[in-house]
Amino acid sequence: MTSYQIWQNDKTLINDLQDVEAMIDQHIRIKNKHIEAQIKKVTNNHGKMLRPVFVLLTSQIGNQYNREKAIAFAAALETLHMATLVHDDVIDQADTRRQISTLHTVKDNRYAIYAGDYLFSICFNMLSKYTEELNLLNYNARSMEKVLIGELDQLESRFTPPKSVKSYLSRISGKTAQLFAVSCYTGATESGASLRDRQRAYNMGKYIGMAFQIIDDILDVEGDEKNVGKPVMADIRQGIYTLPLIYSYQQQPETVGALLDKATPFSDDTIAQLKSAIDKTGGVLAAQKLATRYTKKALIVLNKLPDGDYKTTLKHIITDMLARTL
Amino acid sequence: MTSYQIWQNDKTLINDLQDVEAMIDQHIRIKNKHIEAQIKKVTNNHGKMLRPVFVLLTSQIGNQYNREKAIAFAAALETLHMATLVHDDVIDQADTRRQISTLHTVKDNRYAIYAGDYLFSICFNMLSKYTEELNLLNYNARSMEKVLIGELDQLESRFTPPKSVKSYLSRISGKTAQLFAVSCYTGATESGASLRDRQRAYNMGKYIGMAFQIIDDILDVEGDEKNVGKPVMADIRQGIYTLPLIYSYQQQPETVGALLDKATPFSDDTIAQLKSAIDKTGGVLAAQKLATRYTKKALIVLNKLPDGDYKTTLKHIITDMLARTL
Repeated sequence: MTSYQIWQNDKTLINDLQDVEAMIDQHIRIKNKHIEAQIKKVTNNHGKMLRPVFVLLTSQIGNQYNREKAIAFAAALETLHMATLVHDDVIDQADTRRQISTLHTVKDNRYAIYAGDYLFSICFNMLSKYTEELNLLNYNARSMEKVLIGELDQLESRFTPPKSVKSYLSRISGKTAQLFAVSCYTGATESGASLRDRQRAYNMGKYIGMAFQIIDDILDVEGDEKNVGKPVMADIRQGIYTLPLIYSYQQQPETVGALLDKATPFSDDTIAQLKSAIDKTGGVLAAQKLATRYTKKALIVLNKLPDGDYKTTLKHIITDMLARTL
Repeated sequence: MTSYQIWQNDKTLINDLQDVEAMIDQHIRIKNKHIEAQIKKVTNNHGKMLRPVFVLLTSQIGNQYNREKAIAFAAALETLHMATLVHDDVIDQADTRRQISTLHTVKDNRYAIYAGDYLFSICFNMLSKYTEELNLLNYNARSMEKVLIGELDQLESRFTPPKSVKSYLSRISGKTAQLFAVSCYTGATESGASLRDRQRAYNMGKYIGMAFQIIDDILDVEGDEKNVGKPVMADIRQGIYTLPLIYSYQQQPETVGALLDKATPFSDDTIAQLKSAIDKTGGVLAAQKLATRYTKKALIVLNKLPDGDYKTTLKHIITDMLARTL
């Protein structure tokens, strides 16, 4: 199951997410109805809506929970995420996203670039309409900067032999973990949480995001049955060297280095040899260990947050994410 | 002269613009210095800096002028403008901008898409750092939405025979006039101007922007000696039907319509015939009249604003823009 119906056991969450969906829909108002329909095809094609889920749950950390605001911020963060996906799909020239043709294939690249920009504006429209905290907006803008620096850094280092786990972690901390961190920070801040708890929420989100990206890297190597059609080692074929590969390179710099030195695009044979090297050197296992470490860190921070039902739900989600059932 | 040195007779303005440039520069901080240098090559390549000039001058409408803030908002609006240019250049596949190779040609499209997104974030970072008015941020975000709706609308209607002057005006009101309008509104708001004067500043900016785009359209048909190398009728070749062409089409729908029905890309011969049709039907003259009308409207609104030296400067600039000396 790829849509947010995976949350069906949690009626409140499903109800909230439906309102998040409706709020995004309301904000996309374009006189030219054909353009509106094209953009809505993108924005109605939700995934698991993990980022809004984190906004909604962390909105219960403080004691000023306000449902309308929580929905609005969840909608803003989901819209920001969708804006990045539209641009990512242009950049990767991906044909489909969640079984639906991507905007740049239905229309063209130019259209998708402007549509992504439009979604960025909608995000800041929502944030500035519903918050009273300018600081929160600044936090969101700076997070967006970090996401893009992470993406640019990844582009720069495509097909470059992996330097270190440290530089990998720094990149995914921007590219992926920032949006999770700022989602949790936004929920906590708007709920009136203490400064300390806001920072904790931020850290928890960041650890969740780190684990999420590492697991994504593992799925790239192992194959992801849930997303049928996604080819194995797709990232590596594109020159994005994932964590299991970096570990494997550290173990056998000569063998793996020689494979990575081959002409690109890599042949299927090179890809098979790289996969075999990762398997032999235990690259996936090492990555799995690090993902577990980040998950544990997230749970430790969660434990320090004020009590409430939201904690139980978050604990399940964080654990399920690691077990790859999410 | 293409840089902001055109303002050299106004020492205060030049001084302010240098600080705007420095402020933008300060905000671009990326650990990977290679990426930072690539982006700075774009952001240091200023044009006339018209939008910051309007922010700086309208910052003197109210009685709470604050130089640091005026500089910051001028920097934010210039950054927003540059973000749109980076994406426009990808979309138009333009090789150079102000005699310097565009980012997507030096690096690639993917790089330029993310770099543009990064500049959008910087704009919202600056706005949210320096303003105390959430409403102003919302205004900026919604303006950005309108700009993008205008761009999408223009993409959709490429190579479509022009419907009406009205639909043309609605499109350029988004695509071009919004950024001028919001620049003036931002200056006025931050200077503590009355609500009425803020609205006037907004309207003045909008009229300026409308005149600016119409003049740009005229330069596309007539050729622009200042920008050597820009081919005549470049917009029309790309299927963007400019105002002189729309007027010409209204005068001779059959002749012009038949030319526009030809296979695209248009041959040089078709372009020459279109240019000749525009000349015969007085399309440029009619467009010039409308630009004059908008300029007059801008000057009428300007006249209603509180007195101050800034008014004399603005009057000169608005008049010079129409006379195409700017």
